[in-house]
Amino acid sequence: MSQRQLALNAFILPTGHHIAAWRRADVPEHANHDFAEYLRVAKAAEAAKFDAVFVSDSVAAASGNGGSSLDELALTARGTRLEPFTLLAALAAVTERIGLIGTVSTTYNEPYHLARRFASLDWISGGRAGWNLVTSSAPAEALNFNQDALPEHGERYQRAEEFLDVVQGLWDSWEDDAFVHDKASGQFFDPAKLHVLNHQGAHFQVKGPLNVARSPQGYPVLVQAGSSEPGREIAARSAEAIFTAHQTLESAQAFYADVKGRLARYGRSPDELKILPGIFPVVGRTEEEAQAKYRELQELIDPRVGVNLLSGLIGADLSGYDIDGPLPPLPVTNQNQSRQALVQELAAREKLSIRELYLRIAGARGHWTVVGTPVQIADQIQQWFEHGAADGFNVLAPWLPGGLDEFIELVVPELRKRGLFRYEYAGSTLREHFGLARPDNQYVLQQEQRAAV
Amino acid sequence: MSQRQLALNAFILPTGHHIAAWRRADVPEHANHDFAEYLRVAKAAEAAKFDAVFVSDSVAAASGNGGSSLDELALTARGTRLEPFTLLAALAAVTERIGLIGTVSTTYNEPYHLARRFASLDWISGGRAGWNLVTSSAPAEALNFNQDALPEHGERYQRAEEFLDVVQGLWDSWEDDAFVHDKASGQFFDPAKLHVLNHQGAHFQVKGPLNVARSPQGYPVLVQAGSSEPGREIAARSAEAIFTAHQTLESAQAFYADVKGRLARYGRSPDELKILPGIFPVVGRTEEEAQAKYRELQELIDPRVGVNLLSGLIGADLSGYDIDGPLPPLPVTNQNQSRQALVQELAAREKLSIRELYLRIAGARGHWTVVGTPVQIADQIQQWFEHGAADGFNVLAPWLPGGLDEFIELVVPELRKRGLFRYEYAGSTLREHFGLARPDNQYVLQQEQRAAV
Repeated sequence: MSQRQLALNAFILPTGHHIAAWRRADVPEHANHDFAEYLRVAKAAEAAKFDAVFVSDSVAAASGNGGSSLDELALTARGTRLEPFTLLAALAAVTERIGLIGTVSTTYNEPYHLARRFASLDWISGGRAGWNLVTSSAPAEALNFNQDALPEHGERYQRAEEFLDVVQGLWDSWEDDAFVHDKASGQFFDPAKLHVLNHQGAHFQVKGPLNVARSPQGYPVLVQAGSSEPGREIAARSAEAIFTAHQTLESAQAFYADVKGRLARYGRSPDELKILPGIFPVVGRTEEEAQAKYRELQELIDPRVGVNLLSGLIGADLSGYDIDGPLPPLPVTNQNQSRQALVQELAAREKLSIRELYLRIAGARGHWTVVGTPVQIADQIQQWFEHGAADGFNVLAPWLPGGLDEFIELVVPELRKRGLFRYEYAGSTLREHFGLARPDNQYVLQQEQRAAV
Repeated sequence: MSQRQLALNAFILPTGHHIAAWRRADVPEHANHDFAEYLRVAKAAEAAKFDAVFVSDSVAAASGNGGSSLDELALTARGTRLEPFTLLAALAAVTERIGLIGTVSTTYNEPYHLARRFASLDWISGGRAGWNLVTSSAPAEALNFNQDALPEHGERYQRAEEFLDVVQGLWDSWEDDAFVHDKASGQFFDPAKLHVLNHQGAHFQVKGPLNVARSPQGYPVLVQAGSSEPGREIAARSAEAIFTAHQTLESAQAFYADVKGRLARYGRSPDELKILPGIFPVVGRTEEEAQAKYRELQELIDPRVGVNLLSGLIGADLSGYDIDGPLPPLPVTNQNQSRQALVQELAAREKLSIRELYLRIAGARGHWTVVGTPVQIADQIQQWFEHGAADGFNVLAPWLPGGLDEFIELVVPELRKRGLFRYEYAGSTLREHFGLARPDNQYVLQQEQRAAV
């Protein structure tokens, strides 16, 4: 199949992406801690030939603002779940082909740990690992890691850049053919093919080498999920896929053009970075059925949950304001800046009250909501895909497992009929699914460059 | 079966415990990074009804001393392998009953990460997780984590004690029945059953709560592997199993009596802590066959590897000394103090040269080496078990998978015949295998105590 193909990731958040999804009768009660439920979703996505499952993360139970947030958290299913990396390692052992993308923050981790774990996941999965690099944005996370407050936005991204350099240097510690396993002579590896990093930087001092061999993909696929200015820049420099949030075709197109336009400065081609917005699909066999499903979900949102969720997204406590009044003017904070701007622009553009606004964002949390028939949804996906807005999508199933099952049963066949999505996997690694090359070892490249001079 | 039963763990080090095991013809070349090989070992141990697999760790490729150690490392299979936690999470998905004990250092980690991961592993495995707490002893590890040198021994243990308090506090964040999942009212959990840790200590400031529910075992089983004075004390206070190294029955008995004697001070009974020395068994159908196997392994040790290994264990570079001369007098260092003393005592007691000494420790790294027939090995196990030296053993197979297979095929039936080891699992969690109670939630206990006053 030579036609350009959509990439599709299944986003796994237990119970699903909609804040009130857990209240649906068909959502399993114990989904947050039942591995069998996560596995069921991953197996469904794999059977449908999705590129990857994608797991988000937060290193705190409450990610909102204000002292009252634990009480409001108690009205959601968001407080607890399996740790993403543990989950993905377990899924690696019982899936065959689907990619496994896990979110890990550079703000509260050490590069040596992260490099080893993702290299190990890549080995165990046979080359299916992906790392979604985030810098964290919830104030509650800092308090679990010896800090009084979230570090500054710019500072977080500076640390992230250096963190990534260290991780990639560690992944290159061993050349691909370093291990000779010569039982007769007793030589297990060739020391000339081992490279000691000796990194000394502003944030990290890491000697190396890594104690894991270079993994099947060379580097696990690097995903990035921040759309702020420094987020775009780190993506242009290093990321291979970007998870982004847009409400309109125009916004997605502008983002797509901007980020793809930055790649040349780093000697990269536009194809080396896949732009994957989130899509929150509510599918019905008729438009009325789809709208009724969506309405039913929205009606399950407790107003306290809605206001708290909006407060978290916008970085300010809105509980003291009239729920049916307008959004008050708010300064840009130190948190997720691109998402704050998106929500404020939506409120201003459509003159929404606080209640109307949380209803608009509670489901998809700022992502693109598409409610309709399989043909209507496929039309919109095709429009974004063919008009410079997306290379594929992170599918944010409204509820799980049913919401993903419906997308797979109803929308995926429509995409296939149009030649937009694969019937079978062509490769076995996540890089192959995404059409990305395996990166060379930087030390080997340097040696080749020196030899060529 | 009411007779007291042995606990048996299978220690998984790829290629096996003997430093030269990888050179045997029957040891798979790619064992270090091939998940299928690890799984094969875990499945064999599970089929034999072992209590657990046990995975050690080091957060550096080279754990020895001196600048030349990478070249010497190249003569061993010890530089690289799968990261233990990633490995155990993957094993959790494809095993059913066997316990999964992973080593994680408190010196280079954050308690919030560790608490979440082990709670998640406990959920995924249905209550089979165990954490082997170590404080790290290899100087090379510090250099990968922004430090110039290994922190002082006492300082490491102070951090470990506080680390453990934080982790256990986080594991108790949620009462076991905190989650009500009331879809009709919209109440997901009961906020009164959520406990925020608010820890402020010398090493850590961690607010909590944990974002994982209290796991099947309450706390994953706590294993401890340091036998120094502070190691014994932390074990007496908190550990439920201790992995220790002894060469003689007398040494093991003294240790057993000492540690069990410390428990009462913490209000604990002797049964609440299982003492599990390492055993390095070389089994033959005849004694000659066993001795020949052992000799064959020993002859595979390159002298440079032997001296380097001894240097690492003893905390000093021995490469400048006459290999056939005596061990020079050495000061106690900041590293693994109990193991240093053990090795020095062995050299003095038996007047061993450096070569003789490394040959004695290269296989079992200071652990108890038993070479003989199944009856001879079972006799010695029984002696230690029945004479106050051990509650069970960590079986350090000389090579893998064959060395463990032979132990299972030849020695385990002999132990069963004597009524010392189970034919079938009686329970499903690691606590149940070890005969350990599920700990109460500390907040619930405090409430009960307050109510009783």
